[in-house]
Amino acid sequence: MSTKSHTVIDVDALFDALVAPIRREVVEILGHGPCPAGELANVAGVSPSTMSRHLRVLLDAGVVAAARDHDDARIRVFSLRPESMGTLRGWLDDLEATWATRLESFRAHAERGTRR
Amino acid sequence: MSTKSHTVIDVDALFDALVAPIRREVVEILGHGPCPAGELANVAGVSPSTMSRHLRVLLDAGVVAAARDHDDARIRVFSLRPESMGTLRGWLDDLEATWATRLESFRAHAERGTRR
Repeated sequence: MSTKSHTVIDVDALFDALVAPIRREVVEILGHGPCPAGELANVAGVSPSTMSRHLRVLLDAGVVAAARDHDDARIRVFSLRPESMGTLRGWLDDLEATWATRLESFRAHAERGTRR
Repeated sequence: MSTKSHTVIDVDALFDALVAPIRREVVEILGHGPCPAGELANVAGVSPSTMSRHLRVLLDAGVVAAARDHDDARIRVFSLRPESMGTLRGWLDDLEATWATRLESFRAHAERGTRR
């Protein structure tokens, strides 16, 4: 469905996708398992067309994937792509990799402060 | 400086703060240690007033904290608040706590599909 379903997740696109609370809600729902678009709209309390618009953003960012339901090809079933959350975790991990240095710098800074 | 420097970080405010690439760049720079506002503007290649606007958003969201420089009180030194990244990690951890269930559901879904 999405042409980007196998590409690397772009951090900009990921944050753009996750900035809307309703799209984070979709991610949280899909964290529990794949879900049809109609059910996502019901659970989130929005119209099918509103949900469709948000799912398009999530698809384009590579956060979710869509497949036809095995029993009813008219139904699109959405699932969370672990890669997307992996990208977010990677961003955090990179940040925390500098943490030790940060704390070191902070200590040095504090010491400079108390030396005056 | 920020009135919210000791409050719990709101997930909505956190994503609003991190959606702008320049603000994520500030977070990444501060991951290495506290930094004066002027130096942040230089490193990010924006004007001091543009940086000031972005720092205000980060301050209000509780992502960064500001303090006066020990040696020159006219200089505001910004630092990353670990709580903010902790909030993002908490959101991810909650999501991944349902992961086992998700994979279980996915397997069940796949099995339903192959059973037809």
